[in-house]
Amino acid sequence: MGAVTPPKQDRSRATRQRLLASAVACLAERGWAGSTVSVVAEHAGVSRGAAQHHFPTREDLFTGAVEYVAEERSAALRALPVQGRAEVVAALVDLYTGPLFRAALQLWVAASNEAQLRPRVTELEARVGRETHRIAVELLRADETRPGVRETVQGLLDMARGLGLANLLTDDTARRGRVVEQWAALLDDVLD
Amino acid sequence: MGAVTPPKQDRSRATRQRLLASAVACLAERGWAGSTVSVVAEHAGVSRGAAQHHFPTREDLFTGAVEYVAEERSAALRALPVQGRAEVVAALVDLYTGPLFRAALQLWVAASNEAQLRPRVTELEARVGRETHRIAVELLRADETRPGVRETVQGLLDMARGLGLANLLTDDTARRGRVVEQWAALLDDVLD
Repeated sequence: MGAVTPPKQDRSRATRQRLLASAVACLAERGWAGSTVSVVAEHAGVSRGAAQHHFPTREDLFTGAVEYVAEERSAALRALPVQGRAEVVAALVDLYTGPLFRAALQLWVAASNEAQLRPRVTELEARVGRETHRIAVELLRADETRPGVRETVQGLLDMARGLGLANLLTDDTARRGRVVEQWAALLDDVLD
Repeated sequence: MGAVTPPKQDRSRATRQRLLASAVACLAERGWAGSTVSVVAEHAGVSRGAAQHHFPTREDLFTGAVEYVAEERSAALRALPVQGRAEVVAALVDLYTGPLFRAALQLWVAASNEAQLRPRVTELEARVGRETHRIAVELLRADETRPGVRETVQGLLDMARGLGLANLLTDDTARRGRVVEQWAALLDDVLD
């Protein structure tokens, strides 16, 4: 159908994606308190009315944005060529160090204090978490029928999340590289 | 000197500690945006003027509060009777699941968007992080002169931080228990 899609629909889709990308950027840079629908619309070069047409509420816009970017990153991760464990661990950890993680973190922390946001973000976090776990199991070629393997992969993803947090205020790249190298080696012992 | 300390000094010290405890509670429950000096003073049952006498700025109050509680928890951790590795790992992970971690997380995330707060919190995080690492090495009886041991302990604390994040919106106790059990066993293999 691609070639015959009316231009209007294309434009609408492009506007939507620009809004989602801007929402993640604003959330990462300014936090929840500084990220209103108006701020995102301006960042995206879209009118406030157009923004509200796509996303009726602030919650719709920001949970939608984190989910969209998470899905994009999952797809990119799945498309990685088959690699060694150390590279896979590094790629998984990288999921938690960029603007997406910063944006998601802002959203999680805001949700912990805002009743309106909380159920939406809780549900989103569970969904994205399950998907990331599935991808990790696949890429690591982990056999979850063996005792302890599931918990090992979960702990690895928890560590990745903690490494993301450690990178929030300072550039933690060098230390993170050494931790990842060591833990990838530990993982090899368990998974093989 | 304890018995002859003037009552006025005692009262001042008690007021200070009440303010610090209230600051942590407010930060954990309401986030940075909802935690002003006035809110904390009211929570502590202290006048705003008295609060400002102890803590001239909002940054002083909240970084002071997180540091104070972190020190209290470090002292409690050091005072633990000598235990097995699994118990030590569980105790370390517990550092990241209570109101202190919630408060610290709010402060970190706020600092990532607020230039005024950022250097203070970055410095505080580094200090608390070093101290926690020192305690972990001690309690785990880890020999950091052996290759990989330092990075293993660091990764464990990163995992603990990530587990704290996973507990922010939902009660993650059951899953966390299984992850801790598995990783404590892996740790034993590396450290012995």
